[in-house]
Amino acid sequence: MKVGYQGIPGSYSETVVQSQYKATEELDVVGYSNFPDLVHDLATKKLDCAVIPVENSTTGLIARSVDLFRYQPIVATAEHYESVQHTLWGLPGSELSTIQTVYSHPEALSQCDHFFKVHPYLEAKAYEDTAKAALFIKEKMDTNQAAIASPRAGKLYGLKDLKSQIQTENSNTTRFYMMKYKDNAVLTGNQLSLYAETRHKSGALSKLLQVFNLFDCNLLALNARPISGKSFVYGFFIELNIASMQVPFEILWQTLQQVSEYVQLLGQFDVEIKKEG
Amino acid sequence: MKVGYQGIPGSYSETVVQSQYKATEELDVVGYSNFPDLVHDLATKKLDCAVIPVENSTTGLIARSVDLFRYQPIVATAEHYESVQHTLWGLPGSELSTIQTVYSHPEALSQCDHFFKVHPYLEAKAYEDTAKAALFIKEKMDTNQAAIASPRAGKLYGLKDLKSQIQTENSNTTRFYMMKYKDNAVLTGNQLSLYAETRHKSGALSKLLQVFNLFDCNLLALNARPISGKSFVYGFFIELNIASMQVPFEILWQTLQQVSEYVQLLGQFDVEIKKEG
Repeated sequence: MKVGYQGIPGSYSETVVQSQYKATEELDVVGYSNFPDLVHDLATKKLDCAVIPVENSTTGLIARSVDLFRYQPIVATAEHYESVQHTLWGLPGSELSTIQTVYSHPEALSQCDHFFKVHPYLEAKAYEDTAKAALFIKEKMDTNQAAIASPRAGKLYGLKDLKSQIQTENSNTTRFYMMKYKDNAVLTGNQLSLYAETRHKSGALSKLLQVFNLFDCNLLALNARPISGKSFVYGFFIELNIASMQVPFEILWQTLQQVSEYVQLLGQFDVEIKKEG
Repeated sequence: MKVGYQGIPGSYSETVVQSQYKATEELDVVGYSNFPDLVHDLATKKLDCAVIPVENSTTGLIARSVDLFRYQPIVATAEHYESVQHTLWGLPGSELSTIQTVYSHPEALSQCDHFFKVHPYLEAKAYEDTAKAALFIKEKMDTNQAAIASPRAGKLYGLKDLKSQIQTENSNTTRFYMMKYKDNAVLTGNQLSLYAETRHKSGALSKLLQVFNLFDCNLLALNARPISGKSFVYGFFIELNIASMQVPFEILWQTLQQVSEYVQLLGQFDVEIKKEG
């Protein structure tokens, strides 16, 4: 089975791949340098599965990945919450007191702002990726430099744990979708993820939302996203729980199609118990 | 009058300040290096007004600015749509054919991806800000380097227009709010901007949305944003038009307070005719 993710070994996405798919001889894990190529290869069946981050507890919807799901024959069959825990990794022999420069992704650096406040002598430098920053430290062989990356990344590259759990907010968690090509997916569960574009009429969004109310679906989240090439016209990413719904799924779906210009099922799965802290 | 914005002269925000406020001897325009300080100074009355980007036609809600409006005594009294047009700026005497490196904000670079495809010999380099990239080119005095910045930025810094309108999507537009301290704001107009946190009960968001339906408000946009310190609990940024509403505003507001845990008026103004392309 061929599973794709964005990043290199040691990235948070790859850590999720390792926890979600059983390591067997048949497991072929492929890292991509960007989300468009990853989604394209899943949509054209070059991959069997893909693990893609969709939301972060601090920064919200990850638009650069979910925007790509639109109009594609792909669907999420499971979700997974991964706690974001940052470690400061240095070369073997280095000490926190001798470090001068710390490399990581700008988002990871800002997630450790408290750590930088209490260690003001450390200079934070932007790097394109957390795991790549760890690899860079390994290859650069300079004991004055360190990287902020996942617990798995530093171990993979043989680095020394200078300080673990340096993230400011302990509850920082990223949510991932396990995605498949639509025709290969078995969809069950009470959690639904949708993308809908309403008709361009006054009250169209309210009408769409009334459907969920009518069928006793619990609306959990809604995010407006611009439609490419149409200024300030939106599509909506919607999440709902259908545990209380009394009508068959097919009736809900037909009704949604009636009140939308376009509607796409982005995922159906069982709720994962959220890991926090 | 003291007006604040994020950036330096020549940034898109500063261009909006120049177009929205009459240049008089009393106009004091202050650039900030970050959004938190800008919002803080408006909320503590150190500024009379602030011009802040809230949405982009391609990338959607600008969460890093609107998230800061929450729980603050500030409100938008007007909106403005500013077309994003990028120019390639070089030193006087430089030519497009001799340029090797182009500096700009990563978002601006990606907005000109087509230009880089047809000029593959140009190396794109990330810089923290478009206007600062223009200033950097002026100070570096290297005719092999150029910056991508606004039409205003290059003129301000005495640079040469090597090629204008190099953005891939001509309709790319950023929407700004003109904001004031709450008690100093005169609020009129049919366009409302709200922030609401629902009670943590099943169906709470649907209930909130029913209010808009009940009072004939036209729901235009809705974005779920994480609440700080509460994983996967959301507040909602909502925009609506109340032109068709038959009841007094006060009744709508009281009803919203009944069905929300917290509700905040982020803006009330007349719709600006959208400039496009």
